[in-house]
Amino acid sequence: MNTEFTNIAGNILDSIKQSKKILLHCHPFPDPDSIGSVLSMEAVLTKMGKEVTCIIGDSQYPEYLTSLPNHDRIQLKNYSEIDPKEFNLFIILDSSSLTQISQKKEVIFPDTLKTIVIDHHKTNSQFGNINFVDSGSSSTSEILFKLFDAWGIEIDRNIAICLLLGIFADTGGFRYPNATPETLHIVSELSAIYPDYHKFVFDLENNKKPIELEMLGLALSNIHEYYSSQVVFSVISNEDLRSRNISKEDSMEGLIGNTLRSVSGWTLVASLVEAEPDIVTVSLRTRDEKRYDVSKIAKSIGENGGGHTGAAGTTIHKPLGEAITSLLGVISEFYPELK
Amino acid sequence: MNTEFTNIAGNILDSIKQSKKILLHCHPFPDPDSIGSVLSMEAVLTKMGKEVTCIIGDSQYPEYLTSLPNHDRIQLKNYSEIDPKEFNLFIILDSSSLTQISQKKEVIFPDTLKTIVIDHHKTNSQFGNINFVDSGSSSTSEILFKLFDAWGIEIDRNIAICLLLGIFADTGGFRYPNATPETLHIVSELSAIYPDYHKFVFDLENNKKPIELEMLGLALSNIHEYYSSQVVFSVISNEDLRSRNISKEDSMEGLIGNTLRSVSGWTLVASLVEAEPDIVTVSLRTRDEKRYDVSKIAKSIGENGGGHTGAAGTTIHKPLGEAITSLLGVISEFYPELK
Repeated sequence: MNTEFTNIAGNILDSIKQSKKILLHCHPFPDPDSIGSVLSMEAVLTKMGKEVTCIIGDSQYPEYLTSLPNHDRIQLKNYSEIDPKEFNLFIILDSSSLTQISQKKEVIFPDTLKTIVIDHHKTNSQFGNINFVDSGSSSTSEILFKLFDAWGIEIDRNIAICLLLGIFADTGGFRYPNATPETLHIVSELSAIYPDYHKFVFDLENNKKPIELEMLGLALSNIHEYYSSQVVFSVISNEDLRSRNISKEDSMEGLIGNTLRSVSGWTLVASLVEAEPDIVTVSLRTRDEKRYDVSKIAKSIGENGGGHTGAAGTTIHKPLGEAITSLLGVISEFYPELK
Repeated sequence: MNTEFTNIAGNILDSIKQSKKILLHCHPFPDPDSIGSVLSMEAVLTKMGKEVTCIIGDSQYPEYLTSLPNHDRIQLKNYSEIDPKEFNLFIILDSSSLTQISQKKEVIFPDTLKTIVIDHHKTNSQFGNINFVDSGSSSTSEILFKLFDAWGIEIDRNIAICLLLGIFADTGGFRYPNATPETLHIVSELSAIYPDYHKFVFDLENNKKPIELEMLGLALSNIHEYYSSQVVFSVISNEDLRSRNISKEDSMEGLIGNTLRSVSGWTLVASLVEAEPDIVTVSLRTRDEKRYDVSKIAKSIGENGGGHTGAAGTTIHKPLGEAITSLLGVISEFYPELK
């Protein structure tokens, strides 16, 4: 525990002690780290005798997280539907900018409202009165564990399962490099408090909709291999979608990049979906991030292209056949050795 | 650490100390727990100055585990290709019966060979001179961690990654209830020794063959929903397979039970593959093990039916259409509430 951490943990606790009515929120399309950090913070603040209001924000409460204890303490309200002047403190969790509070209306804080940002996203714009942004932690849930520990809070079953799910989700089930030894040590402590966490993990990972499987089936039935199968595209035409009455929105459900990447030997893969006539959404993945940067490919082709080295996306405004040719052209230009 | 454990750990160590030449083996179709426990035990015994021989047994060394350190210390030999009389001690890991040593030829131990069985399978037939069967441990790798710890062995990076992968695989990535708080505590200790374990986990989970994705695509393109979508079958006919030149063996590659079960709302799912004309292999899954026992369904229909409450299989010797009708009949007989 370093001095900087001790100081900020103390400052946050002081602000909480000085406040009576505290606001918490979930970010748009809330994931388990958003929900988990809000529900665990709510439990801790309530234990401290505070009046806590949690709002869901822009989205619906996710169906697959309704088995979490006390989830009904999150009110189905947006930031524009509450009066922020009624609160002394707003603890903003897992949100890197104001747009993560709401995108429906401009978010303005009244002068009387103190704001504390607690987040793990490197890109956080530090928009609070106090900002604790720790990108070395896997998740906001992991940061909260460390804070609760420093504050001497007893972590009960309800708090443990919320934090554990938040960490599980943001580390891809302890698969990503952000699952550090410290993360796993925290997970082992949380599992000692909530040993029967497995059912929640099942619910987390098994909440697909039938349309997602239909899209996956369609995508896998249209596989094209290039360059001795080192480059593989799955291709869905707009006609395919229309003949099955799959809407543009639903066509986004079948994110199959990771399924394509799971084949050993398929080095660089992409899913191309002609969601509207002559508009092709492209999702790129590679198994070998050290040699190939798919974000470079995504940026150099199409619109709003970008992402990470191993996973990126873009939109190409061309008929499907031309989009395929363009993409193959860019790939062989950047990485002629694949050809 | 209880007395029973201390005693058996001591007995095993004594046997090792009294032996010079020690044999280790992998079970047929070796998984990461088989390979991981053999490679870690090999490293520990070699550190102790023993002459160790590891044999792969019935199968090939799995391609996706070739990045494991010192994997080439496992010789590509079967039990029938070595002379067991040359060894003082055979430490039999992760194997519940003699058939897990070899199925190619009868396995006979010479009188001069001492045998120690170390395993976590409840069904173990305790066929060694010393048997340490601990079904409370997630994996043989977890048992070995506890033994090495009791023996005061320093766990180095090579040993740590082997044990970690064995535990990861046998707990389904810490998803199954056998991942206890003690398991996770061990994992956190191992990750502190090998923090960059993530690449191995990726290799472990992403070693699919193209034919598996083709089978998955075919299966998902032939979904039939029954009983208000509470019962869902994916159905592949023999004609489907023949028209794509998919062999009987390859038709088994696309294990899609878990993919079907991932849809929330699809309570009881099955994949039916007519691998040969009029021979239908059936794989059953349920999301709700408390209410539905798919092994009961599998046992009451077809040949060699059985399995677990949540996952079971059988073979129905009927044309595909009749097999579907029979299966639906049995399901609605056992569980009329689904209808």
